Amino acid sequence: MTKDPTTIVPRLHFEPAEFEARIAKTRAAMERAGVDAIVVSDPSNMAWLTGYDGWSFYVHQCVVLGLAFDPFWFGREQDAQGAYRTVFMGADNVIGYADHYVQSEVRHPMEVLAADLATRGLSAGTVGVEMDNYWFSARAFATLQKGLPDATFTDTTGLVNWQRAVKSPQELAYMRTAARIVERMHKRIAEVIEPGMRKCDLVADIYDAALRYDPEIGAGGDYPAIVPLLPSGSDAAAPHLTWDDRPMKSGEATFFEIAGVYNRYHCPLSRTVSLGAPSEALKRTEEAVLEGMEKGLAAARAGNLCEDVANAFFAVLRKYGIEKNNRTGYPIGISYPPDWGERTMSLRPGDKTVLEPNMTFHFMTGIWAGDYGLEITESIVIGEGGPECLANVERALVVK
Amino acid sequence: MTKDPTTIVPRLHFEPAEFEARIAKTRAAMERAGVDAIVVSDPSNMAWLTGYDGWSFYVHQCVVLGLAFDPFWFGREQDAQGAYRTVFMGADNVIGYADHYVQSEVRHPMEVLAADLATRGLSAGTVGVEMDNYWFSARAFATLQKGLPDATFTDTTGLVNWQRAVKSPQELAYMRTAARIVERMHKRIAEVIEPGMRKCDLVADIYDAALRYDPEIGAGGDYPAIVPLLPSGSDAAAPHLTWDDRPMKSGEATFFEIAGVYNRYHCPLSRTVSLGAPSEALKRTEEAVLEGMEKGLAAARAGNLCEDVANAFFAVLRKYGIEKNNRTGYPIGISYPPDWGERTMSLRPGDKTVLEPNMTFHFMTGIWAGDYGLEITESIVIGEGGPECLANVERALVVK
Repeated sequence: MTKDPTTIVPRLHFEPAEFEARIAKTRAAMERAGVDAIVVSDPSNMAWLTGYDGWSFYVHQCVVLGLAFDPFWFGREQDAQGAYRTVFMGADNVIGYADHYVQSEVRHPMEVLAADLATRGLSAGTVGVEMDNYWFSARAFATLQKGLPDATFTDTTGLVNWQRAVKSPQELAYMRTAARIVERMHKRIAEVIEPGMRKCDLVADIYDAALRYDPEIGAGGDYPAIVPLLPSGSDAAAPHLTWDDRPMKSGEATFFEIAGVYNRYHCPLSRTVSLGAPSEALKRTEEAVLEGMEKGLAAARAGNLCEDVANAFFAVLRKYGIEKNNRTGYPIGISYPPDWGERTMSLRPGDKTVLEPNMTFHFMTGIWAGDYGLEITESIVIGEGGPECLANVERALVVK
Repeated sequence: MTKDPTTIVPRLHFEPAEFEARIAKTRAAMERAGVDAIVVSDPSNMAWLTGYDGWSFYVHQCVVLGLAFDPFWFGREQDAQGAYRTVFMGADNVIGYADHYVQSEVRHPMEVLAADLATRGLSAGTVGVEMDNYWFSARAFATLQKGLPDATFTDTTGLVNWQRAVKSPQELAYMRTAARIVERMHKRIAEVIEPGMRKCDLVADIYDAALRYDPEIGAGGDYPAIVPLLPSGSDAAAPHLTWDDRPMKSGEATFFEIAGVYNRYHCPLSRTVSLGAPSEALKRTEEAVLEGMEKGLAAARAGNLCEDVANAFFAVLRKYGIEKNNRTGYPIGISYPPDWGERTMSLRPGDKTVLEPNMTFHFMTGIWAGDYGLEITESIVIGEGGPECLANVERALVVK
């Protein structure tokens, strides 16, 4: 007994009009880029364009948008069921490929897509593909090229990502809910952390605070695009370690790089907790970072450039003799693993992108030194004056 | 004050001799494939070859292994700190690239790698790359080709994955620990699930059972390569939906596709819970699946083929008039997002791979019908006789 897909009513987090506006905006960018269609493999872009949601990005899938045709979802046949339930454009625009294309050494799903694109008049068209995206492999590209030998392929990595930069009121509402969740997560950490607590137990508490329904917030949480990162002591010099099941030690500081998530919208926020008195180096770094953040936040306003924020922050760090040789922030919003950044602008010297109202950034002011790490960060909304800090968590090193 | 990397003692989950054996086995496969070196971008392969662990796969990174040179880790400079702490082969074999290569529109990390490979005599060599891996983008390949115009590139997707198929005693020990964890997770679900419970709260309980240190097990858990999948009612026709914050309903069945994880080794196990009396269709599917699993498990022994397991299972399903048009299992072991499968063999008709002792599979017997889903699965170790089922969870539809 198979349900008629056209009778399934999808649950959408946005009004159809918002999706239509996103598509219109994206088509305008496609015209500027000179492409007839784009193959969108990034799950965040797929979700933003159509609503598609599901942990199916481990097989080949995409959304294709043409100047001359409506967007359609393309993926594994069994995942079409997920698409029927999450995309705005109806079951007729959901195309599944047979399961024997999955992880096969002799067949590739992009053969099916190439044949489909040919029927849409793209045999000699110009097709944009996300060349530097996780979910568009070198083999996917080679297969698509082979299937459409007369088409011209253009790299449109980031084309959709750039359209996502300025957030709508509904998107900002979801991010503010995510901010309430990350506040709760940091509150929980401060409450339960103590020497001897096993790190895996603390992570269980972090997930608990991240996920459980909160009547005051009116929401329960979603999974983050990056799992909690929380290295301690000299391991905190490494930014991307996760956790183990050993007890935490007195005298060590741990940073917590975590995010609240609601309807796939992220509010990252990092804080650092010292169990026992912090080292002089850590205290001095805290002082530099807090002073630098004030300057950086003051520069984070519409009309300024991305690099202005970084330069303001780095100038203070240099005054303290601290060198930070990596970028100090990136745009945020809707995201899927492995990254909650939007991968367009960066807050770093040389990035001349002009800040606009309702752009949102993780002001990522982490310092990873040779033998310690300190992360105290803010997620912000750009405005005409100073930015809105999405979450309200005391901006300081927590000492316990 | 920067710590001298060569003084950092990495924490390894395996003896150096085990890594050396893996490398010897991989080099033998490289010789058969006719390549001088392989660029290994899959984080699971990177970890298996070297121990590397960290959530840094959202930027370009890899392990390179040559026939004529030791493996080295290549990644973002700041992540070298994580490599010093997790790889077996010493700081001299850790190479970081500068941060301005990260998500840049004008520079690419593969330019740096190409220059490095040239110094190792590979300018006109044969280099294997994982063409169909998430973490080796179309742009990464194009950049590498441009930087080594006289090299020959070969697709070695799966080359390392295949070496991982037969598990060592230490790997099996970690998977048995993961099995204890997934047992605890299903026990918790059965205890707490009830109509009206919000799904996000149930997920918080699942993470709690997955992560907290358990003195009886002697371990706390790690993050899964796939987040919990738990659609209810007719949504369970879609295999890869995650969760929301709405209450669960009486009269609906929910499948739980989850895994216990320890030291990145996975033991997936799915069960299905019906709140209230299950439908006739669900009960009949349960009967078919359980009977089919007995036949499939009986066929899962050394010397048989992958397809034998699938054919035995499918034959029973057909007797019941149930068609399953997707594969019914895949190898498992060490994994990183987005997938806990090894992406080599599949338990499906046509796969003639011979089963060997200590191969490990998720016997994925899920049925996603038009308006319901049932998942009752086992993770197994192949032996000379019947397989070892890693976890001990009653093999039945749970009715509550």
